Amino acid sequence: MGNWEPTFDAAGGNSRATEILRESAKLFAANGYDGTSMQDIAAAVGIKKASIYHFFADKAEIHRTIVVLSLTRLTELVQDRQRGLERAADRVEAFARAHAQHIAESAPFYFTAALGYNEIIDPAAKAKVQRMRDGYEEALRGIIRDGIQAGEFRELDVKLAARAIISCLNWMARWWRPDGADSAEKIASDYVKLIIRGFLPDPIE
Amino acid sequence: MGNWEPTFDAAGGNSRATEILRESAKLFAANGYDGTSMQDIAAAVGIKKASIYHFFADKAEIHRTIVVLSLTRLTELVQDRQRGLERAADRVEAFARAHAQHIAESAPFYFTAALGYNEIIDPAAKAKVQRMRDGYEEALRGIIRDGIQAGEFRELDVKLAARAIISCLNWMARWWRPDGADSAEKIASDYVKLIIRGFLPDPIE
Repeated sequence: MGNWEPTFDAAGGNSRATEILRESAKLFAANGYDGTSMQDIAAAVGIKKASIYHFFADKAEIHRTIVVLSLTRLTELVQDRQRGLERAADRVEAFARAHAQHIAESAPFYFTAALGYNEIIDPAAKAKVQRMRDGYEEALRGIIRDGIQAGEFRELDVKLAARAIISCLNWMARWWRPDGADSAEKIASDYVKLIIRGFLPDPIE
Repeated sequence: MGNWEPTFDAAGGNSRATEILRESAKLFAANGYDGTSMQDIAAAVGIKKASIYHFFADKAEIHRTIVVLSLTRLTELVQDRQRGLERAADRVEAFARAHAQHIAESAPFYFTAALGYNEIIDPAAKAKVQRMRDGYEEALRGIIRDGIQAGEFRELDVKLAARAIISCLNWMARWWRPDGADSAEKIASDYVKLIIRGFLPDPIE
C-alpha cells in the first residue's frame, strides 16, 4: 500500500469496513477474484466470516466497492494534478503521472480495478464502472483535442493516441512492482515523453 | 477462432487433444483459469471428464500447453513477417502486425497466454514461458537497436520504446473484439505509426 487510505462513505468511514476493503484488495490483486474466498478475507482481517456481512452483502459487493473507490481516486488525482497547467503536453504528462501515483500509492486497489472490472456482474455497478472508465479516457482525449486546437499537436487520431497512453499505463499493472528500479511516475513520464513526440507537428509541413 | 489450428506435438497431432486445447482456451479466455473446471472442459468437448486424462495430467497442464503454443506461434509469426524487410520502421510494423495476426486468428489462445501466464505454477513451465516472453520482447528491442545504429531512429531508451509498443498490443487483449470496427492488424499498424514518430531523429538536431 502507500499513503492513500480509502474512505468508505457507505460505512461512515468505519475503520473495520476500510480494513476489510484493504485486505480484500491485496487478496484480489494476488489471487484474483475467483481465487479469493470470504474465508480468506476474514482470515486476513483477523475476524470471523460472519462479521464481514455486517458491512458487505457478499464478495461481489466488496469487489465492486474496491473498483469504484480506485476509479474515483484515479479521476480525482488526474483532475488535481492538471490544475494550473496550460500546455497540453504538460497536461498529458500530469494525467499519466497521476495515474502512476495511484498505482504506487495503492497497488492492490489499482490492480483489482485495472484487471478485475470484467468480474463485475451486477448490472448497475457494471454500468457505473463503465461510465467512470469512459469518463477517464474521455478526459485524456479532451486534453489531446485541446492540444490539436491550440496547434501544439498535429491533427491525429485522438482515440488511438489516448488509448496508446492508457495502454502503457494499464499494462504497468501486469509488470510494475514497487521494489523495481524506477518509480511508477518516472516510467509514466518517460512513456508520455516518448509517445508525445509522435503528437508534435512535423516541422517540414 | 480463426484459421490457425494449434498442433500438439506431445499427442502426435492427435485431433482430440487439439480439440481439448481449443475448447479449454475458449473457457480460460472467457472465465479465467480458476473459473474453469475439468468438468466444464469435458462438457464443452462433449466427452467424459476421465477421457481428458488420457491426454493431459491435469488442468494446469492443459493451461500451460495453451500458453506455450500461443507464445510459440507468436514468435514464429513475428519472425516470418519480418523476412525480407530492411527498414527498422517496417520491421517494427511487421512485428506489431504479426502480433495482431495472432490475436485475430486465435483470440482464445492469445487471451489465455497474455492474461494468464501468472497462473502457471510449475517451475519448469514458468521458466520456459518467461524465457519465451523475454525472447519475444528482446526481438523487438533488437529491431529498435538496429534502427538506431542505422541512423533511422534517434538515440532512445530501447527498453522503454519496446515496452510501449508491447503494452499497446497486449492491452488489446482487454478490449479488442473480432466484431469491432477495425481489424487487429489495422489497430496494431496505427499504434506503431503513431509511436514510431517519436523514434525519428529530430530534424532540427
